[in-house]
Amino acid sequence: MAEGTYPKTAANTVNRYKHQATYDVETIHSIVNSTAVLHVSFVPDPSDPTPIILPMIGQMGAYPGDEASGDSTWKCYLHGYVSSRIMNLTRSNEQGIPLCVAATKVDGFVLTLSPNSHNYNYRSAILQGHGTIVEDVDEKLWAMKLITNSVVPDRYDNTRVPPDNAEMQSTNILKMCISSASGKVREGCPEDERKDMKREDVLDSVWTGVIPVYEKLADPIEGPYNRIKNVPDHVGKWVKEENERRETYTREAAKKPAPLKRPKASS
Amino acid sequence: MAEGTYPKTAANTVNRYKHQATYDVETIHSIVNSTAVLHVSFVPDPSDPTPIILPMIGQMGAYPGDEASGDSTWKCYLHGYVSSRIMNLTRSNEQGIPLCVAATKVDGFVLTLSPNSHNYNYRSAILQGHGTIVEDVDEKLWAMKLITNSVVPDRYDNTRVPPDNAEMQSTNILKMCISSASGKVREGCPEDERKDMKREDVLDSVWTGVIPVYEKLADPIEGPYNRIKNVPDHVGKWVKEENERRETYTREAAKKPAPLKRPKASS
Repeated sequence: MAEGTYPKTAANTVNRYKHQATYDVETIHSIVNSTAVLHVSFVPDPSDPTPIILPMIGQMGAYPGDEASGDSTWKCYLHGYVSSRIMNLTRSNEQGIPLCVAATKVDGFVLTLSPNSHNYNYRSAILQGHGTIVEDVDEKLWAMKLITNSVVPDRYDNTRVPPDNAEMQSTNILKMCISSASGKVREGCPEDERKDMKREDVLDSVWTGVIPVYEKLADPIEGPYNRIKNVPDHVGKWVKEENERRETYTREAAKKPAPLKRPKASS
Repeated sequence: MAEGTYPKTAANTVNRYKHQATYDVETIHSIVNSTAVLHVSFVPDPSDPTPIILPMIGQMGAYPGDEASGDSTWKCYLHGYVSSRIMNLTRSNEQGIPLCVAATKVDGFVLTLSPNSHNYNYRSAILQGHGTIVEDVDEKLWAMKLITNSVVPDRYDNTRVPPDNAEMQSTNILKMCISSASGKVREGCPEDERKDMKREDVLDSVWTGVIPVYEKLADPIEGPYNRIKNVPDHVGKWVKEENERRETYTREAAKKPAPLKRPKASS
């Protein structure tokens, strides 16, 4: 478990809805690590400031080998094909390449009296840093297991492992050292401006509330060559428990007091 | 409805899993327009190739005023606060700023025999282009309605409209002209490499299948100052129908033949 806060700098300081901003390391890591697809941005050609975004699978973690040598900061590990553009570009730059990673979870649609006060309940995290290719075989295997288990816990040890030479060659792991990070969390019921709260005609005609939203895992469907009769616990039981956790979070977030009306958290 | 295909260029040509790539205008627009949060990337400082990503709400559409003057291409409209960094930067550049927009939907976790063959069913779209601020009031109102209704259809006319002067001033709409676009779609059951399909011990011990995933809308929860007794149809009925559509898509995608085994679509 990582603790503390990321430093506030010009690059990451949130200016809009500051009360929803967070620099808490644990909160930011948990948003990244519970997001099924990370959006990764980089600039393919430094002479042209047009970025590209790739959807990638990744996880934050602290590699025990780094910790043993005194570096306990968490890195973001991203999984990709060996000859993808982002891997080729990273490989050709000894210093690595500047990256931005975004993770966003939509937790609810907040429906208010006016269109302008409409909002989402959400959790988002933005990381900036430098990515390099993981060359160390132990670290690479550790990251592959970390990333596979982020999709379904314990999945790695329930598959045909370890990866063979061809598989190790065809996959690259990008390791991103974080230079700057911030998060933003909105939870709570609708909140309207005073001018609309005074309008009886508006209050009498517009439904206000929250539609909670969560990424639901439907019942697992076996594939054509599956021979295992019962869905194993690491899949079936996990799907049930995970849906309960997700629905509970999103429904409770919808019922909390609105952000601006909440007593300030002491920090 | 827009038709045709986006041109294939060096910037957008998909090299990995080409059979899953699409340049079809309608497919790309539908992925963007059914994604609750778009990830928008830009480079804040042209002398430093470090991009930033913002989660934003947006929609693609063709403004009737543009169509009347002979431009029927679809633009991506993004909604933001007037003094956010992206709006300030765009305003200060007469030519607008280079943007990349990504939309990704996770449709399922594809669990195979080996970790390396694990996959997602997903739909993703990437747009590159230039963003400028919408100054025309009619176009701005049209885009605000388009974006509000993308969250919940018909919501705009069921709220206190039109926006007043202060609301028009505090909101900016970014209009992105598309220079390059591509999409990628994976649907289907698990698919493993021949070397694992020959291993009886592996086939006898590893469960393979798909966990379908979709963004579920839970039952609407009324807010503290709501006075409307029954959830209106544009919210309640829509939530039910939308969940059915989403679950059906994701479950059917899980049952389709694997991509590499499907007969090639004629194009």
